Amino acid sequence: MHTDRLSDPAQVPSAAEIHELMTGRIAEFPDFPEPGVLFRDITPLLADGPAMRKVIAHWCSLLPADLDVIVGTEARGFVLGAPLAYELGIGFVPVRKAGKLPGFPRSVTYSLEYGTATVEIAQGAIAPGQRVVIVDDLLATGGTAQATAELVRDFEAELLGASFLIELEGLGGRDKLADLPVSALWSIPN
Amino acid sequence: MHTDRLSDPAQVPSAAEIHELMTGRIAEFPDFPEPGVLFRDITPLLADGPAMRKVIAHWCSLLPADLDVIVGTEARGFVLGAPLAYELGIGFVPVRKAGKLPGFPRSVTYSLEYGTATVEIAQGAIAPGQRVVIVDDLLATGGTAQATAELVRDFEAELLGASFLIELEGLGGRDKLADLPVSALWSIPN
Repeated sequence: MHTDRLSDPAQVPSAAEIHELMTGRIAEFPDFPEPGVLFRDITPLLADGPAMRKVIAHWCSLLPADLDVIVGTEARGFVLGAPLAYELGIGFVPVRKAGKLPGFPRSVTYSLEYGTATVEIAQGAIAPGQRVVIVDDLLATGGTAQATAELVRDFEAELLGASFLIELEGLGGRDKLADLPVSALWSIPN
Repeated sequence: MHTDRLSDPAQVPSAAEIHELMTGRIAEFPDFPEPGVLFRDITPLLADGPAMRKVIAHWCSLLPADLDVIVGTEARGFVLGAPLAYELGIGFVPVRKAGKLPGFPRSVTYSLEYGTATVEIAQGAIAPGQRVVIVDDLLATGGTAQATAELVRDFEAELLGASFLIELEGLGGRDKLADLPVSALWSIPN
């Protein structure tokens, strides 16, 4: 199932280059979606094709070898995880919010500050023993990633890590994923 | 802004090969999300990395040359549009449902069978004159695509077409986009 990479793995941009590129292409919006939250908007990065080529090349260098599947979380995890899977020539499995998948998807429900949320993956989307990494745009408190990890393990897959475009270090997400290798392209205090 | 394609444009799989590949990798679920609707689930296609490489290569051959931007519709349009943009080395602009984008996004509200829906694109995400194609997984009644076309034109962009993985011909979506070139990888009656 392993396909060759599309771009030359020897030409990986440095972490410094990626940081500079991201600094100039991620917009900050205070108090969105609620007061006290500083929202990072990745729209300018996504709109820059050559920059995205560099980000994906660097991101691939952070991932374990011989992966079978990238699991990406709705919805920004789709925009980042699908090109990562495409570059590596491997499968992409979407993690959806409740009610979007037909049939009898597997699901995990988890607690939010107020209420609960549910993540779902289609039955049979991941085969037992497949080597999987979870991808999303942002690691904040880690609730969604933790629930997604539980869901992936329910498929008896080999979960090798979780990887994020941005990590907000002050929010403790990495602690919630303590049993899992975590990587991020850009770690910032909060 | 135009970057070289990653894969060899001379090696484009035939339409027949793509049809066969899709037939075996799109699952059908009757009466989802509501009675009378036959839902096409693209999960098996997405999970097959080598098949996705072929689909994207073929899809690129259907698009106008010298594009600047792929506009993809939440959420399955993200999973398909982002690798298309990545392959072409051009920008990807997400069309989001109401309330997801910070700042003051541009929006268009349109009618559904019951009620209305709103599509939004971030301010400044598309520059005037940029050459744009809209991408989504499915062309059914065409309401979302029509609203997205109106939204893209509001940016004074050059909207060159709309392109879909699957077109349900019997639902009249193409008629709603009559002023726009429409392509699809797989056209089926309904």
